[in-house]
Amino acid sequence: MDAKVDTSSIAITTGPIQGSEKHYVETTGGLKVAMRRIPLEPSSGEAPVTVYDASGPYSDPDVEIDIEKGLPKLRQAWIEARGDAESYDGREVKPEDNGSNASVPECPAVNHRPLRAKSGANVSQLAYAKRGIVTPEMEYVAIRENEGRMAAADQERDGEDFGASIPDLVTPEFVRDEVARGRAVLPANINHPESEPMILGRNFLTKINANIGNSAVTSSVAEEVDKMVWAARWGADTVMDLSTGNDIHNIREWIIRNSPVPIGTVPIYQALEKANGVAEDLTWEMFRDTLIEQAEQGVDYWTIHAGVRLAHIPLSANRTTGIVSRGGSIMAKWCLTYHKESFLYDHFEEICDICAQYDVGLSLGDGLRPGSTADANDAAQFAELETLGELQKICFAKDVQCFIEGPGHVAMHKIKENMDKQLEVCGEAPFYTLGPLVTDIAPGYDHITSAIGAAMIGWYGCAMLCYVTPKEHLGLPNRDDVKVGVITYKLAAHAADLAKGHPGAALRDDAISRARFEFRWKDQFHLGLDPDTAMQYHDETLPAEGAKQSHFCSMCGPKFCSMKISHELKDVAAQGMDEMSEKFIEAGGEIYQKTGHKTEAAE
Amino acid sequence: MDAKVDTSSIAITTGPIQGSEKHYVETTGGLKVAMRRIPLEPSSGEAPVTVYDASGPYSDPDVEIDIEKGLPKLRQAWIEARGDAESYDGREVKPEDNGSNASVPECPAVNHRPLRAKSGANVSQLAYAKRGIVTPEMEYVAIRENEGRMAAADQERDGEDFGASIPDLVTPEFVRDEVARGRAVLPANINHPESEPMILGRNFLTKINANIGNSAVTSSVAEEVDKMVWAARWGADTVMDLSTGNDIHNIREWIIRNSPVPIGTVPIYQALEKANGVAEDLTWEMFRDTLIEQAEQGVDYWTIHAGVRLAHIPLSANRTTGIVSRGGSIMAKWCLTYHKESFLYDHFEEICDICAQYDVGLSLGDGLRPGSTADANDAAQFAELETLGELQKICFAKDVQCFIEGPGHVAMHKIKENMDKQLEVCGEAPFYTLGPLVTDIAPGYDHITSAIGAAMIGWYGCAMLCYVTPKEHLGLPNRDDVKVGVITYKLAAHAADLAKGHPGAALRDDAISRARFEFRWKDQFHLGLDPDTAMQYHDETLPAEGAKQSHFCSMCGPKFCSMKISHELKDVAAQGMDEMSEKFIEAGGEIYQKTGHKTEAAE
Repeated sequence: MDAKVDTSSIAITTGPIQGSEKHYVETTGGLKVAMRRIPLEPSSGEAPVTVYDASGPYSDPDVEIDIEKGLPKLRQAWIEARGDAESYDGREVKPEDNGSNASVPECPAVNHRPLRAKSGANVSQLAYAKRGIVTPEMEYVAIRENEGRMAAADQERDGEDFGASIPDLVTPEFVRDEVARGRAVLPANINHPESEPMILGRNFLTKINANIGNSAVTSSVAEEVDKMVWAARWGADTVMDLSTGNDIHNIREWIIRNSPVPIGTVPIYQALEKANGVAEDLTWEMFRDTLIEQAEQGVDYWTIHAGVRLAHIPLSANRTTGIVSRGGSIMAKWCLTYHKESFLYDHFEEICDICAQYDVGLSLGDGLRPGSTADANDAAQFAELETLGELQKICFAKDVQCFIEGPGHVAMHKIKENMDKQLEVCGEAPFYTLGPLVTDIAPGYDHITSAIGAAMIGWYGCAMLCYVTPKEHLGLPNRDDVKVGVITYKLAAHAADLAKGHPGAALRDDAISRARFEFRWKDQFHLGLDPDTAMQYHDETLPAEGAKQSHFCSMCGPKFCSMKISHELKDVAAQGMDEMSEKFIEAGGEIYQKTGHKTEAAE
Repeated sequence: MDAKVDTSSIAITTGPIQGSEKHYVETTGGLKVAMRRIPLEPSSGEAPVTVYDASGPYSDPDVEIDIEKGLPKLRQAWIEARGDAESYDGREVKPEDNGSNASVPECPAVNHRPLRAKSGANVSQLAYAKRGIVTPEMEYVAIRENEGRMAAADQERDGEDFGASIPDLVTPEFVRDEVARGRAVLPANINHPESEPMILGRNFLTKINANIGNSAVTSSVAEEVDKMVWAARWGADTVMDLSTGNDIHNIREWIIRNSPVPIGTVPIYQALEKANGVAEDLTWEMFRDTLIEQAEQGVDYWTIHAGVRLAHIPLSANRTTGIVSRGGSIMAKWCLTYHKESFLYDHFEEICDICAQYDVGLSLGDGLRPGSTADANDAAQFAELETLGELQKICFAKDVQCFIEGPGHVAMHKIKENMDKQLEVCGEAPFYTLGPLVTDIAPGYDHITSAIGAAMIGWYGCAMLCYVTPKEHLGLPNRDDVKVGVITYKLAAHAADLAKGHPGAALRDDAISRARFEFRWKDQFHLGLDPDTAMQYHDETLPAEGAKQSHFCSMCGPKFCSMKISHELKDVAAQGMDEMSEKFIEAGGEIYQKTGHKTEAAE
């Protein structure tokens, strides 16, 4: 444990995305809400387009980044001002927290005196919301979610939201109310003050999660921290650290101290490491100790597979792909070995009590999700979902924020049933799905098979989409795969927002479409989710700088461009359509009739 | 025109796809229907999986490929046997057919004595179908479409087909009936006897089209022929040659003589070249001459934008992105210049008469499709769709096969309206859409934004999905882009088939899922749409050959594998679940109850 991390070799990605600038909306109350602004070419006469920004201080050139120091503690003063938490001597780090072959040193930014709720207090955003308190976190989120809504105020709503309650404007009071109803979750561990508040819920923008983590096969702390920064840069709203193997504790510390987005984990992974990989040797005490360890570090939400009950396991025995959730299979094995109810289920209230002391959200894991379209929507999956509904009610009663995990592999015609059933049995708690993949036959392209299902379930009401990379089922994602996965899921989430009719969601689509129509190539790149790739693709065919000013592109060449012809048509239409029409009508034709100020067709 | 094509340098891709073998289903009547068969590891005890195969003779190691000679003429004898066509001295190739700066020599496999219907005859598959004739083409298609249906005969149908009439088994008579109703199209120009019959229709497997073609900016005949072979190899069911610029005629000849899939074109592109790119100089005579030229070469279907009527143009004047169809904008410009009705609309019956002489299908182009989500489902688009419905009725009356093109850019909530309206106004003729893209904000990833919409509209009933590559809106697709586009659309089309409940569609998904569950890595790669990429991704993390036999992968490592644990669970379940349950019940528990032969959960 004496090794030093050579931070000089860690290339943390900083600076704005090409064509964007960091932008803050500041309130009179002193809040400074981070956004990204995309200025357009002056010729357009258009205002900059502001977009949601998950990238944190890394994209602000005025912030100095030092991963040994960690990020500025944005929420610290808010947490302290509430006066309901106290610092204490945290649980001592044990050798087994990092495994037998540890090599990653402790992050210097670690705080060995974490916060927890004072005796009798509950520091969750849900507890505040129920008491009518609008926290700064809620206010931050309200401003963050409003991006574009003001500009779209005069536009007619266009969408199908399947019974959601999307407001014209997100007010702090609306955020509080949605959290208080359990319809939204604002993950915000009081020991992760570096995080920028964000919210999950069907009535808010659709969010995405990116999974990172070393594994027993390959690992490096520098890579993992940068993967988190990289994922957030391209739009990951939360990051789950799914590390296994050695150094789990210390890698997590490095990640949390440097993460502007909420961090989720699956604590059973670490507990199993402590049990040397033997599921039968897991105990509640070991698991409980792991929860405290992670809560003190600042993990914002936990996936806990408490819905895998002994009675559900036989339902999965004849499946095509059995149990594909790691956490689910570990618990199933434990249950069967002792022929006992899951200790996660039996101790669920105690788990909630720990969550309430730190405001850790619970992501109720779908341990029995289908691993193939053959197993979708089967008895095992839905039996577990009903148990998750039961557990959601316990969370809600105990003022613990909770959301529900969903599948997996589901053909298109079975997706909506998942959403509808989840809404029905889980008290409208946010849904968080992995895809779903709509077919199994495209390994290497499962970011796409899953983005299809993700866009659809997002439209139907899913609050957060867990990304899938091209390497799914095949190998570990590298940096490029993480980016492709994030961009793919951002476009799926945005497609969902557009179809739901989120006010303002279409502004970016419309801005890029105008840029396209007006041959503002650079604006088109900059307004896209991935300006670098867009420009690179353009330049492969037409690398000359002048081509980015040209009024045609490589697809059609100068003679055939439909957009160019359309402009000529538009000019004709503007200047002379009425005139030509009149001439034509005088000549005996009746192709147009003028109705009001607009020329409309009539046959 | 004396240049020689150096065919030695043309790397046409041949040989089977990794892990597959060419397979033919032979009938007593002498038909030999091409398929692809994927043998599985002997340990699986499973039969080979047969899949649809668009690749043609190129994937058969026993066929010698020589692109100067062209492919064997599979359909020649069938066409001749009908006795209703005659050969004649074809139209002479004119200098303007290849443009002023031509460099591609004539394909030696050219036939200067093409076939056309004898006087008074109509050689279209629709004409035969209406007369109750089952052609060999229909029989071929029936066998081709049945892949997997026999094996799935005992399986319950699982899907939502939105009112389609998908049969348990596709019989030649069913094919005839669907063609006769105008609900299906079998593109089969009598001058393209090299093509393997395939069918488009809502009650058949969802098909995909790949666009290739040189452009004024870049070109090479060798590249274009191989792009066609390459696209068909990965699954393109038809290929559209959208070449512009020089050498259009000769490049097309090379492509058709070597294409196992139907070839489509947009004749107005070539006509415009002949008019030196000046839309105003287009004439009906020039266009008509181009149709004859292409029909004699063997083009199987034409996109003709006869639905862009003068009266519709003002409806597009206030759009965000105007007219984005090249053909549509060319015709709009012509109409406005002369303030006259489109010559394509005015001469539509003559166009049909040409089609009937060669059996060229008409793909009624959507010249007013939306080029941005802002313009989706607007008055211009739907006015044109109604005109296409009117033209479809003319085609049907004249026994000309026809299908309908659709958008484009459409947010998810507006997609179904397109399909429903098309079914309603176009007599259930097959729908053929470009995507649609469900958001505009992801240039560089529009194969994905469009695959989401494509999968959905395929599910709703669209018959063919026109692929989109990652370069869409940015540049010309290279070989890799073509492959990514094709694979992306194959997975979207398959997802649609799965959701529609095509009998047998799930067999491949289920086979790959079993391979996954049983750690048969190579089977998993081979059953996937792109075995090369799947294996490459796997090997990036675990390159050792032994890793392809190992019972874990790089994601979880050996200790955490959920699939491995699931197998242990399955063993426990098989051996002792009932026994354990009884023990447990004896001990006073009531977790399981046995119902019949299966152990089911009851709480």
